Amino acid sequence: MSVTGAGRPRLATKKRPGDTAREEILDASAELFTTRGYTNTSTRMIADAVGLRQASLYHHFSNKDDILDSLLSGTVDEPLAVGQGIQGVEESAVVKMYAMAWFDADQLSRSRWNLGALYLLPELRTDRFGSFRESRFTLMNLYATIAGGVVQELESDVSAGTEELPFRLVETIVNGRADTENGRGSAGLHHASLIATAAVRVLGFPGDIDGIHDRAVRVVADVTASSIFEKKAGHGQ
Amino acid sequence: MSVTGAGRPRLATKKRPGDTAREEILDASAELFTTRGYTNTSTRMIADAVGLRQASLYHHFSNKDDILDSLLSGTVDEPLAVGQGIQGVEESAVVKMYAMAWFDADQLSRSRWNLGALYLLPELRTDRFGSFRESRFTLMNLYATIAGGVVQELESDVSAGTEELPFRLVETIVNGRADTENGRGSAGLHHASLIATAAVRVLGFPGDIDGIHDRAVRVVADVTASSIFEKKAGHGQ
Repeated sequence: MSVTGAGRPRLATKKRPGDTAREEILDASAELFTTRGYTNTSTRMIADAVGLRQASLYHHFSNKDDILDSLLSGTVDEPLAVGQGIQGVEESAVVKMYAMAWFDADQLSRSRWNLGALYLLPELRTDRFGSFRESRFTLMNLYATIAGGVVQELESDVSAGTEELPFRLVETIVNGRADTENGRGSAGLHHASLIATAAVRVLGFPGDIDGIHDRAVRVVADVTASSIFEKKAGHGQ
Repeated sequence: MSVTGAGRPRLATKKRPGDTAREEILDASAELFTTRGYTNTSTRMIADAVGLRQASLYHHFSNKDDILDSLLSGTVDEPLAVGQGIQGVEESAVVKMYAMAWFDADQLSRSRWNLGALYLLPELRTDRFGSFRESRFTLMNLYATIAGGVVQELESDVSAGTEELPFRLVETIVNGRADTENGRGSAGLHHASLIATAAVRVLGFPGDIDGIHDRAVRVVADVTASSIFEKKAGHGQ
């Protein structure tokens, strides 16, 4: 069933995945922004890709920036909610760090479009995207806090700034995907466990990873299953 | 002294850094592409920023894509030449890996404009940029080869794909710079030694970094001082 909400009747049958016209618009926009570029995409092209009149699109989003904001926020809201859940769990900091990186790298790998490729758009420097930037920096700080806990727990002798690396390692999934789409054969980096392992190794964890992995997967399962998280995160984008 | 080469007389006095009109065009383009966006920049804007007539700009570059190609190639040609030099040196693989990551992270940190932010442009998927893509993949493969040497030397027990991480870690400099420009206070990641340390840690090097750092710095100094390299790499962009 396709729910168009406040929109006018659809020109054609459903063209895109999504339960609502809003979700279809987001999916089409994500494809166009990541494959044609943000500046090269017009709201008319988006409406065409969904099979909506342009006027109907404006029932859902005021302009192209609103669509971009919604897409980008979708990439940080869920890891932020899960990360806050992970932070509150009774577990060692190493397990929490692994869980956080593993969950987030996995969602960046699996998302239908490589939205992280839009993080470097010059447009994002404007006030319009101040709220998204804040959310992303909050996520970055959460990573750094958990990473700081690992350094303390292990009494690691690491340089200042090392706590920033786990977040950066997770975002390398974006470049890995872009390179694969550009014809680079190897897709090794798409494995979330590789990134999560690297995240704890750079913080000085020398031990066996298998046990950490299993405990971290359990933490993520518990946190994402809790009703509080369901309410908080919704379905991301 | 400003050499305009085949160009017509300059409209104004020199506005940009660079010994030649070509270098000034590249500098202005790098600024405009990274701050306004590639699509949003016209060759007229570039000519204006340099103080050249648009027709004079076309004596140096046929079109905007040629300028972008030249800028991007500049970011990989030099690390590629240095990396090949490092590979040929008689040293342990750990020192070579550290040297490679340290040199490359340093050049990405210090470059006047954050050109790596353009690596994810959808335009780069076209045939026009096939040669740049190949150079970048050659650099990526060089990193993976050196990383493979480290894994072998240390007999590290790492998952398949781990050899891709040092290259990815170096490219995180680009995101770190973009975030700093967007108002994120910390600039911890701009330290090349932090990245180089992480590159050998993820490959399983457990030992003291200080000795490795000193030997790597010597390797880079030797390689960059050799006349073969000078000839090969020129001045990048």
